[in-house]
Amino acid sequence: MATYVLVHGAWHTGKELEATANPIRAAGHEVHCPTLAGNRPGDVKTTGLDEAITSVVDFLAEKDLSDVILVGHSYGGMVITGVADRAGERLKRLVYWNAFVPNDGECLNDMIPPHYIALFDAIEKEIGDGSVVLPFPIWREAFINDADAATAQRAYDGLNPHPMKTFKDPIKLKANPAEMEIAKSYVNCTEDTALPHGLPWHPRLSEKLGLFRLVQVPGSHELCFSNPERLAKAIMDAGRD
Amino acid sequence: MATYVLVHGAWHTGKELEATANPIRAAGHEVHCPTLAGNRPGDVKTTGLDEAITSVVDFLAEKDLSDVILVGHSYGGMVITGVADRAGERLKRLVYWNAFVPNDGECLNDMIPPHYIALFDAIEKEIGDGSVVLPFPIWREAFINDADAATAQRAYDGLNPHPMKTFKDPIKLKANPAEMEIAKSYVNCTEDTALPHGLPWHPRLSEKLGLFRLVQVPGSHELCFSNPERLAKAIMDAGRD
Amino acid sequence: MATYVLVHGAWHTGKELEATANPIRAAGHEVHCPTLAGNRPGDVKTTGLDEAITSVVDFLAEKDLSDVILVGHSYGGMVITGVADRAGERLKRLVYWNAFVPNDGECLNDMIPPHYIALFDAIEKEIGDGSVVLPFPIWREAFINDADAATAQRAYDGLNPHPMKTFKDPIKLKANPAEMEIAKSYVNCTEDTALPHGLPWHPRLSEKLGLFRLVQVPGSHELCFSNPERLAKAIMDAGRD
Repeated sequence: MATYVLVHGAWHTGKELEATANPIRAAGHEVHCPTLAGNRPGDVKTTGLDEAITSVVDFLAEKDLSDVILVGHSYGGMVITGVADRAGERLKRLVYWNAFVPNDGECLNDMIPPHYIALFDAIEKEIGDGSVVLPFPIWREAFINDADAATAQRAYDGLNPHPMKTFKDPIKLKANPAEMEIAKSYVNCTEDTALPHGLPWHPRLSEKLGLFRLVQVPGSHELCFSNPERLAKAIMDAGRD
Repeated sequence: MATYVLVHGAWHTGKELEATANPIRAAGHEVHCPTLAGNRPGDVKTTGLDEAITSVVDFLAEKDLSDVILVGHSYGGMVITGVADRAGERLKRLVYWNAFVPNDGECLNDMIPPHYIALFDAIEKEIGDGSVVLPFPIWREAFINDADAATAQRAYDGLNPHPMKTFKDPIKLKANPAEMEIAKSYVNCTEDTALPHGLPWHPRLSEKLGLFRLVQVPGSHELCFSNPERLAKAIMDAGRD
Repeated sequence: MATYVLVHGAWHTGKELEATANPIRAAGHEVHCPTLAGNRPGDVKTTGLDEAITSVVDFLAEKDLSDVILVGHSYGGMVITGVADRAGERLKRLVYWNAFVPNDGECLNDMIPPHYIALFDAIEKEIGDGSVVLPFPIWREAFINDADAATAQRAYDGLNPHPMKTFKDPIKLKANPAEMEIAKSYVNCTEDTALPHGLPWHPRLSEKLGLFRLVQVPGSHELCFSNPERLAKAIMDAGRD
């Protein structure tokens, strides 16, 4: 039996990962799905990356978890990298699931195409409280392309405005992921086009891990909604010894 | 219930798409498989791209079809792009299935490797009526690599000489596909090696669509022969709202 | 009924391919799994590439095999290319399964990343008899990423030290693979990360074959251990007419 902690991506909360957590629990493992600072109901939308990382470090300490397989989705890859830097002694393996892999000094926006940055900047200005949202057509076509329309809409309705500062804050690391001694895996959903135009998740970002285990699975960026059972299987293949 | 129009590729006719159309019909949709000008029995082989496009524009008008999901295979991508430019008001979504995506002023030959152009030129000269055929070894190994020998031969025997002019004619568009407001999808068969040598269909051509929905499915360029049911499912995933 | 000869990769023997050979035999074919010079119990570890090639040429002659579908895995791609050059008249088709494809004058080390060469050189110096072994963490994460821990360990325990000279010897060929008239296929396991960092097996090495048939299948570099039935099916799809 292993202990999994699933860290959600931007616009999500831990609640949306429960459907993925359940098949992992059914296989005999302990699974936690905390919600990051910045995405909890009532959180101010000026939250930065360091606060988000701290919220997971604190979660691990409060629950006194050890030998944790720490899984990060998308923006969650920024967070689990920071947690590994600050609380590595509680971790057994990092699992990046179509997630950003930062080196020291990089921010999320350093790894996305210029047209996304321009779009997010414009939306942030329009909203005015520091948050950014994802327009539905981009969500439908590029994030959840493998789901039917009803699933895409229901999932979209559950999203929350995301603090833009977490995309702009450079991460501070004592060592880059390739130099971290912890075991690492990358789960790549093969129809994920959330990062378009020749800037794919894998191998562009995965190779920053140095030695890592690749697990690939059919699906979009939001496989947690379109097929959580398949995603759970991939996470377990990535997390096992 | 939706209305699908399936536009075949070079050397094919609409008849070869009936096996793909049938499972789409069985799911409750209306499906048409017209044959393009230049590929109909008796057509002169000096037919150009504009005539092929016109033949679909006319087909939509004759049947008075609207809200059409217009699917194009391979060379058919040239044709559906032209139809969207000229009869966009009848269309709901474009679905490119391992298909060429032209910008204004591009011809099909602009998107294929030089050794194919040289081969096609040589064959066209030898035949002498403006048409080109595909040598069987290339068909067998690079176009229908996922089928058994009998299926590959039977499918080959049904092909018709294709008017080479349609490969050389630049398309005239008021707007490039990325700027077209219509919804767009790209179906990518993952074992398609009809375009070899680092010039793949996806993402090289698909990214010219701007925002689009990706659907991937195992199979060769000629999945319509090797597994029409699987292709039909992919087309429906690409075509749904 | 066809005749298959399966040529193993570095660190392996023919014995490890029996689990793959059996489903091919069950489909009615004749299958041989010889062990290359340099990997047989008692072989000196100063064996070179030419001796390994000769051991297969001799095997084909001793058994008087003809119309052979010659399959090479990884390093075995070097060997089958040399066999095609020297005993092509006995062969019907070459099948490269995540295998190296050399042109005249190339050695295996010319096709792998610099950090592997440095690692192998260091290990060779430490062992001192001309052989090299693969560290378990690399095996587990990058070669057999799709298996459970027990399978990964059991397979690792069966490996034998590999003669490093076979990686450094340039191959001598009368014609490069693209110019060879024999039919060719490439089986690509899609989760194979044994060659990392933007230097993939396919299409980087497969395209050196010229016209070839692509077969793709989910799995790691060591699918012969993690799912031999699936591999056997892929080899038969690659080998059929």
